[in-house]
Amino acid sequence: MAVIGNLFGPELRELIQQRDFTQLREILCGFSAPDVAEIFCDLKPDEEAVLLRILPREVAAEVFGQLPVEDQEKLLQALGNEHVAQILNDIVADERTALLEELPAAATQKLLALLTPEERKIATELLGYPRGSIGRRMTPHYVAIQQNWTVAEVLAFLRTQEHKRDAVNQLYVVDNKSHLVDYVRLRNLVVSPPQMSVLELLENQQIYLRATDDQETAVAAFRKYDVTMLPVVDSKDVLVGVVTVDDVLELAEKEATEDIQKLGGVEALDAPYLKIGMLSMIKKRAGWLAILFVGEMFTATAMGYFEDEIAKAVVLALFVPLIISSGGNSGSQATSLIIRALAVRDLTLADWWHVMKREVVAGFALGCVLAAIALCRILLWPHKEVIYGPHYGLVAATVAFSLIGVVLFGSVAGSMLPFILRRLGFDPAAASAPFVATLVDVTGLVIYFTIAYQILHGTLL
Amino acid sequence: MAVIGNLFGPELRELIQQRDFTQLREILCGFSAPDVAEIFCDLKPDEEAVLLRILPREVAAEVFGQLPVEDQEKLLQALGNEHVAQILNDIVADERTALLEELPAAATQKLLALLTPEERKIATELLGYPRGSIGRRMTPHYVAIQQNWTVAEVLAFLRTQEHKRDAVNQLYVVDNKSHLVDYVRLRNLVVSPPQMSVLELLENQQIYLRATDDQETAVAAFRKYDVTMLPVVDSKDVLVGVVTVDDVLELAEKEATEDIQKLGGVEALDAPYLKIGMLSMIKKRAGWLAILFVGEMFTATAMGYFEDEIAKAVVLALFVPLIISSGGNSGSQATSLIIRALAVRDLTLADWWHVMKREVVAGFALGCVLAAIALCRILLWPHKEVIYGPHYGLVAATVAFSLIGVVLFGSVAGSMLPFILRRLGFDPAAASAPFVATLVDVTGLVIYFTIAYQILHGTLL
Repeated sequence: MAVIGNLFGPELRELIQQRDFTQLREILCGFSAPDVAEIFCDLKPDEEAVLLRILPREVAAEVFGQLPVEDQEKLLQALGNEHVAQILNDIVADERTALLEELPAAATQKLLALLTPEERKIATELLGYPRGSIGRRMTPHYVAIQQNWTVAEVLAFLRTQEHKRDAVNQLYVVDNKSHLVDYVRLRNLVVSPPQMSVLELLENQQIYLRATDDQETAVAAFRKYDVTMLPVVDSKDVLVGVVTVDDVLELAEKEATEDIQKLGGVEALDAPYLKIGMLSMIKKRAGWLAILFVGEMFTATAMGYFEDEIAKAVVLALFVPLIISSGGNSGSQATSLIIRALAVRDLTLADWWHVMKREVVAGFALGCVLAAIALCRILLWPHKEVIYGPHYGLVAATVAFSLIGVVLFGSVAGSMLPFILRRLGFDPAAASAPFVATLVDVTGLVIYFTIAYQILHGTLL
Repeated sequence: MAVIGNLFGPELRELIQQRDFTQLREILCGFSAPDVAEIFCDLKPDEEAVLLRILPREVAAEVFGQLPVEDQEKLLQALGNEHVAQILNDIVADERTALLEELPAAATQKLLALLTPEERKIATELLGYPRGSIGRRMTPHYVAIQQNWTVAEVLAFLRTQEHKRDAVNQLYVVDNKSHLVDYVRLRNLVVSPPQMSVLELLENQQIYLRATDDQETAVAAFRKYDVTMLPVVDSKDVLVGVVTVDDVLELAEKEATEDIQKLGGVEALDAPYLKIGMLSMIKKRAGWLAILFVGEMFTATAMGYFEDEIAKAVVLALFVPLIISSGGNSGSQATSLIIRALAVRDLTLADWWHVMKREVVAGFALGCVLAAIALCRILLWPHKEVIYGPHYGLVAATVAFSLIGVVLFGSVAGSMLPFILRRLGFDPAAASAPFVATLVDVTGLVIYFTIAYQILHGTLL
């Protein structure tokens, strides 16, 4: 599917240059809106603007809604005011909010002025909810029905409604003050006798979202209840909108992307890799990289503290990267497991002690596995006396005990850091693999040289 | 929401011990099936079995379907054959497939024998599709209508059908050989005159999935087309099932979880953190940790190769962790960006050269940032002659050039490795942060000591 854009890009570009709008229109109308949006990815804003103008009005709005926000911004500048107004009035409300919230305040105001009074009211209301709240992702295009209606009355009402998207499969029942009462499934309604009351078809399910709640709550609710849409109420339990599962899928994917990027030690990019400007990308990476670098400088300090030991026994320096990286790797394993478990709510803050106990056991066991490999490597190698000196047995013991200590510390630190960050109100995903590795590197050096001093004192040191 | 289980667990347990089934039934019926499933997470299998037996039949099946597969397995052993048969016949087909595919072949055969002939046929057919294919996640409970029907005929047909879940909002139109033709939206149908032909309501959308395709294809299609369900056809274009978006949300989350765990250097756990046995978890972590450890052993080899240089200039050893970890961190950033971009199809294999060019620029810039910090740290520090010796300027230059080289190499290696793995047919997510770090550690040492030899030859070395 991903190749449609590359296939048609050149051909369309030629037709645009020839101004052959009839054929262009014919080609584009053979595709669904998401396919056209994909074709657009390969074109320049002014080329996109030409195509958008020749598309039928409702298709143009749907295609526009599917484009990445950065492309939408550029396209708005390439289009005339009349077309901008048309598109902004036509696209679904939640996609419009997603665009408007990314623009500078002045640009948002200018665009709001282009809307019809009705759509402007909707847009302003949605933008009134806090950033990152469910209110920002809901659409007001649901169907609300009164609890005293009959099936026939509901069907008659449906015929008077214009429907954007699929938000009609669940009909929300409200009382005379617009409070959400329950919902009715369209499929149950259509197979019921016309005179039956709506009250007999209620689903008796009190699942709803609050407009001011965090968007992560919506993802969790959809994950739990296996539904395709959920009603949203305000603080007075008045029905104000619905959230549909396609938006939630998008949100869940965005959250996962951010977590993966943070776990890799990058600030969330908020844009596809190839779309983000080089300077922004470098900025988003340089910040964390510099912080980690400053943290890692303590390794030089720690190594400096043990400089005499290294000078006396250079063999100790050989194992430094091996030991500290093992701690970093075990920490990276633990932190990625815990961050994801917290994100999908397999774990809550209260589980920290249970996790700690598990990680102590796992860390010790993993440390022993690596220690065994290291012992084999040192003791079974030919010419071990030449490479590691006459005290190779003590060196091997130093390395083995250090590995157990460092891997144990790495596992515990890597698993506890996300809990600590969440407890302090930060995003647990900030406990990135490189962050944990840096923490464990410094501590690992101290563990290693302390054990070396204990074991080798009087012989090598 | 996540606390329901903890709140009701003790109370329910007491009522179970008192065998107060009337009150238990009353309490449980006040909750939706997903809430009951959450309460179950806190109970033992035999307690769960008691509760499942007193729930109304259709609710019991729904609750069972929502439990994690491991809990389902234990519960099947705690329940009598009669109840097992009832539940397996009642749950939706895709949830049953998800359970059966996890069981040993003998257990699956025993359970299949408990099904009614009709359900057994469905279950066997779904299990006939390859593991990881869309066929394994589809449900055969869709509504197929004939293209020559009228609206009235469709509504009459709907009244004869029993509906599991919501798979009725789109009615799939087939020809007389069951080939998928198109679909009709229930909401358009119900507001149309009874004598209108189905053909006038067709959506003209040819979007469908193939049963043998990979499940990732389904996630990508739902992400692109913003739909709540898609039809699935076999190799002869015959309609065989539907996939609903709630299953896709689950799949997308599972994929993200696996990618995050792999990125952290862990084999995918396939179970919630607290549910997986300690031994399995250690096994899944020990494998990669041991492989990385063996790879990291080359650092000791590399360090051994430069042992004479270290003995002559111990000051060089001080910066080893700092330099190699910077390479690892920049590699970890690059690899996590690229892995996610490949997973959500922002990037394809063909983009490798474009990415390479970006990473060369970004890596060089990031290396310069870190080099600048390092120069400040060494040259502006008090007592620099005491700490780094009389040739501190040359040491600073060595560190700075090494950082640029190592960070550049880390960025390029970290970004190219996922492409190489995908090209070779492996999962790009196997290019975990620790894997890249290990690769960069060994190379970083070689870069560092080579630069040191060039700059310090004749003075310190």
